[in-house]
Amino acid sequence: MAVNRASSRRKAKSLLDGRKRVAIEAVHPEIDAGRFPIKRTVGERVTIEADVFADGHDEVAAAVLFRPVSQADWCEARMQAIGNDRWSGSFEIDRPEDYLYTVRGWIDTFGTWSHDLAKRLEARQDLTVDLQIGASLIEDAATRASDADAAKLRRFAERVVKGGRAAATTALSPELYALVSQYPYLCESTTHTRELRVSVDRERARFSAWYELFPRSTATEPRKHGTFKDVEARLQYVASLGFDVLYLPPIHPIGLAHRKGKNNNTTATPTDPGSPWGIGSEQGGHTAIHPQLGTLDEFKHLIASARELSVEIALDMAFQCSPDHPYVREHPEWFRSRPDGSIQYAENPPKKYQDICPFDFESENWAGLWTELRDVLLYWVKQGISIFRVDNPHTKAFPFWEWIIAEVKGKCPDVIFLSEAFTRPKVMYRLAKLGFTQSYTYFAWRFGRYELTEYLRELTQTDVAQYFRPNFWPNTPDILTGQLQSGERSVFAARFVLAATLGASYGIYGPAFELQEHLPLEAGREEYLSSEKYEIRHWNLNDPRSLAPLIRQVNAIRRAHLALQSNDTLRFHNSDNEQFLTYSKSSGDDVILMVVNLDPAYKQAGWLDLNLNALGLSSNGGFSVTDLLSSDTYAWQGSRNYVELDPAVTPAHILHVRQSAAESP
Amino acid sequence: MAVNRASSRRKAKSLLDGRKRVAIEAVHPEIDAGRFPIKRTVGERVTIEADVFADGHDEVAAAVLFRPVSQADWCEARMQAIGNDRWSGSFEIDRPEDYLYTVRGWIDTFGTWSHDLAKRLEARQDLTVDLQIGASLIEDAATRASDADAAKLRRFAERVVKGGRAAATTALSPELYALVSQYPYLCESTTHTRELRVSVDRERARFSAWYELFPRSTATEPRKHGTFKDVEARLQYVASLGFDVLYLPPIHPIGLAHRKGKNNNTTATPTDPGSPWGIGSEQGGHTAIHPQLGTLDEFKHLIASARELSVEIALDMAFQCSPDHPYVREHPEWFRSRPDGSIQYAENPPKKYQDICPFDFESENWAGLWTELRDVLLYWVKQGISIFRVDNPHTKAFPFWEWIIAEVKGKCPDVIFLSEAFTRPKVMYRLAKLGFTQSYTYFAWRFGRYELTEYLRELTQTDVAQYFRPNFWPNTPDILTGQLQSGERSVFAARFVLAATLGASYGIYGPAFELQEHLPLEAGREEYLSSEKYEIRHWNLNDPRSLAPLIRQVNAIRRAHLALQSNDTLRFHNSDNEQFLTYSKSSGDDVILMVVNLDPAYKQAGWLDLNLNALGLSSNGGFSVTDLLSSDTYAWQGSRNYVELDPAVTPAHILHVRQSAAESP
Repeated sequence: MAVNRASSRRKAKSLLDGRKRVAIEAVHPEIDAGRFPIKRTVGERVTIEADVFADGHDEVAAAVLFRPVSQADWCEARMQAIGNDRWSGSFEIDRPEDYLYTVRGWIDTFGTWSHDLAKRLEARQDLTVDLQIGASLIEDAATRASDADAAKLRRFAERVVKGGRAAATTALSPELYALVSQYPYLCESTTHTRELRVSVDRERARFSAWYELFPRSTATEPRKHGTFKDVEARLQYVASLGFDVLYLPPIHPIGLAHRKGKNNNTTATPTDPGSPWGIGSEQGGHTAIHPQLGTLDEFKHLIASARELSVEIALDMAFQCSPDHPYVREHPEWFRSRPDGSIQYAENPPKKYQDICPFDFESENWAGLWTELRDVLLYWVKQGISIFRVDNPHTKAFPFWEWIIAEVKGKCPDVIFLSEAFTRPKVMYRLAKLGFTQSYTYFAWRFGRYELTEYLRELTQTDVAQYFRPNFWPNTPDILTGQLQSGERSVFAARFVLAATLGASYGIYGPAFELQEHLPLEAGREEYLSSEKYEIRHWNLNDPRSLAPLIRQVNAIRRAHLALQSNDTLRFHNSDNEQFLTYSKSSGDDVILMVVNLDPAYKQAGWLDLNLNALGLSSNGGFSVTDLLSSDTYAWQGSRNYVELDPAVTPAHILHVRQSAAESP
Repeated sequence: MAVNRASSRRKAKSLLDGRKRVAIEAVHPEIDAGRFPIKRTVGERVTIEADVFADGHDEVAAAVLFRPVSQADWCEARMQAIGNDRWSGSFEIDRPEDYLYTVRGWIDTFGTWSHDLAKRLEARQDLTVDLQIGASLIEDAATRASDADAAKLRRFAERVVKGGRAAATTALSPELYALVSQYPYLCESTTHTRELRVSVDRERARFSAWYELFPRSTATEPRKHGTFKDVEARLQYVASLGFDVLYLPPIHPIGLAHRKGKNNNTTATPTDPGSPWGIGSEQGGHTAIHPQLGTLDEFKHLIASARELSVEIALDMAFQCSPDHPYVREHPEWFRSRPDGSIQYAENPPKKYQDICPFDFESENWAGLWTELRDVLLYWVKQGISIFRVDNPHTKAFPFWEWIIAEVKGKCPDVIFLSEAFTRPKVMYRLAKLGFTQSYTYFAWRFGRYELTEYLRELTQTDVAQYFRPNFWPNTPDILTGQLQSGERSVFAARFVLAATLGASYGIYGPAFELQEHLPLEAGREEYLSSEKYEIRHWNLNDPRSLAPLIRQVNAIRRAHLALQSNDTLRFHNSDNEQFLTYSKSSGDDVILMVVNLDPAYKQAGWLDLNLNALGLSSNGGFSVTDLLSSDTYAWQGSRNYVELDPAVTPAHILHVRQSAAESP
């Protein structure tokens, strides 16, 4: 009898494997069989799907098991069947800590019995024996229940065992089912073989607006070397534009050997300041500060002042050395030596970069190198830095990044790492899997509707979205795209709106961007003429052509609308005009629809074909859209609506979509 | 210097992990992270793909490592880069034994150096130091080489280290590259974390034609109970039709309790023979033979006679019992008992199947049950059976199947298991993953072009093809589809050709099929009227309407054409007539193109739009196609060709495609 069976089952625990009848397959998300974590920020939900099924006709039940890593016990979120043996369940990240999750499935014995009973009842069969079986199952659940629930369950069992139609009605009551379901028999349940991890970051990992500037170009007088104090004076400008990360190229002493001159010239004049990425001189290396910028105290003061404006200073971490770097003398074993006794400089044959010596990650003393570089990061964390933009991570060994990021985040979980890697896609994705919080993308080179759509779908609608957080940059000190070289204000405006609304995180290299700096070093190349990488520049922030007002407005819209603060709801919409890129993002009721004119030269007009479902709208109702840039409101109807955009006036509509009053529930 | 570095590297083996710079991802095929093997037959190739890449600009090399499980050492098959950091390599299964495989990747130091040298040479740089580095790398390879190759390598190193243009030419010689590549430095190589398994079967697992018949219906006189001797007399017929598996429903004693009468009647008359699936009586259970069929010796004689005709006898294994089965008395703990003391019969509420008692796989004594059932299979293996068609495997616990199939194949690797499960797709696929060699499919219910195409693509072009070998049955004793109920000869003919050419394995339930038995028990049901499951039938094999000639012809074509003996090259082709299903299979030069008319009533005509690439043809040349059914030959040109098919004449073209003489290379 069922009760006896259940208790005897408990005795036989050591041999239970053969009776685990539930299969769990295709758990999602699961990156590379659980080798890598998925990423979330505090407050986000994790939705888990899995195939959960058993042999035969028994019903199954399933739950997501999850816990913060510091908690010993699993929490449980029951999953719902969503068809074809697939189940779905979710939980929210409510602590700033990594989580683990897995999936458990079991035979829902009582549910199966109850389901069968209903069919027997309908067929007017004799239920006496079946009700006895059911009573046993209820009593069995009582043995696992709290005292109060056990008493309730036993009273149910007494009523059910009596037999007859009333007993059947009791047996089928939702109250009883809910009660029994709380105490399933789990000894023969199946748990997914892998515990999967969620890497949890703070909100800025997901939603951030970056501004990059060269501190040495911030002096009030032309040609004078800017200082941390000058940067401090610039903070108000950066904050007022709505940026929350101010990213500085390397601030360390710059080497003299093979120092680059203006425009990447291989010989420098005595007054050339050199490239900030040529790190290290007699004045120190990666933990020192270039004297012309100021002192450590002044730098810490800058960090503190920025924080008061809710701006964080991000430091550039370029793990490479000028030939003058102290490491070259102190640790020659960290570099590759050539048969002639010299240290190997950086090369991309036939090109030579003699001002830079790369570390050799195959060094005998690789462990010493790793430890030292970790200590460099921890040094800056101690000074108040919690965001690093990592230069060229794709030229350092993969295991190194996995280790060093874990080391730093183990000590300070708040630290954010942005991966600067514009290389092969699989390398970029690997770096993200290994722990980089955010990643540069190919956005700078995606111009047309098809290529933007395909690329963004890959980033937001595939597994890539689980571990790769894109950060969209229309320009960087190394990348002045051909499109921007036109110098047209409308191009800069459109590229800005795309970056800031396609990506919850984006950045610009300014003031070059807002002032539409656009002359290349030479035709066909993406380097800037008179690049700040090699010389001090002076920028006129008051130029009336500056894009600062648009930037300020868009950043304010981003802050006001949750929809723009993540990427997972990004959906593209059709339009009959190929020059329109139309897409939406939503967060609950907050729905934003973007229409960007990709043609910088001509006014474009056409009909949108909206996916109303993605906008949370009914199929044929009216709704209103308010352009958050122009404040104009339009009454729209159904999926087809007319739009025209003149690049001379505005690059885009950023439309706040609202169900019309009459349509609202 | 490189040589010193290399030797010092060898000392530091214990700490090498940090220097493993190569990443291996997305290895394919890999089923459920390696939880399940892929399947192949002897002589087939296994093609492995993987993403293999490293940081930076160094070149990588990769190899598939593989070995028969009984061999200790890995064999190596070098992989080729196929773009976007993806690599491909393959090996052939040349032994009837399971294989293991994995992927290894490493930095191709010499290849990188050699690549760079070519660029330096082109840029006319001074190569002195680079040639010294290269010479060191060559000497390093020599330390790992055979004595003869080491000598060769050292001579190369001497020439290279001399410097100058001649040394560079030597350094870049393909001969040197090939030699060095044989001896890569593997201490810091990366091997995929999982060893993956290939479950290897004999050829019949992949290519088989099944014929099912009820032995008791094979007597020469109507109403008389057929015997194994009668089946033996039928063997010549089965073999002459071209079948190589003769599958018999259960041959065991049939229970009396609740025995089913004709047409599934719940009460039987004393003369009703009962269902062969109601296994077990006082005369014995799963290892006994139903006395009216004959003796064990006669059964063994049948097996031997069949084998002489290259036909194997497949036994039906239905793990369930009649209430009269000896197990019910001897092992009541293997069944579920009800509170009234009775044994639980099979149910699908409100339906009751009181002639059948299912085993309880949650039994306390599950291990005893498993062992007994394994011994049943081994008993029949010992009598000469090496193919089992397993009845309703989806109603028994998954872990049981994985165990019992491994147990039986561990003792006799030749055994083939066909899974009879027409249930939810994920359950069917799971059973295949767990070890079933072949599987029934939904083919019986896929009629239209779209649904056939989609289903076959799922079975042959996705990961399913790696572990699920479909066996297509147009009918079974339980499945007389609505389409067949029309009784039209053209329907039977078309369904036959589809089964036999879409699937390398297929089967028919005869003689019901070739004689186009088509009356259902009642309208809207798929059971046969006067089903052989409940009564003895007598068939007129000489009926002039029999499809035997078509069957004989198609089976002969299958045997003559390798293309039809596997499914992995199946490709569908377009046509402007929706009633044509057009598909091809190929094996090297052997290319077969099928055009099946899905309309049983009317002549259909239209233009095919062939995928010439799938046919191994050039894009605009002429070629000839010979219909292997009619022997007609047509001269075709390019992708668009005209076809007409009259169901009154033939259901299909089975076209042997040959490049025209003028086109042949």
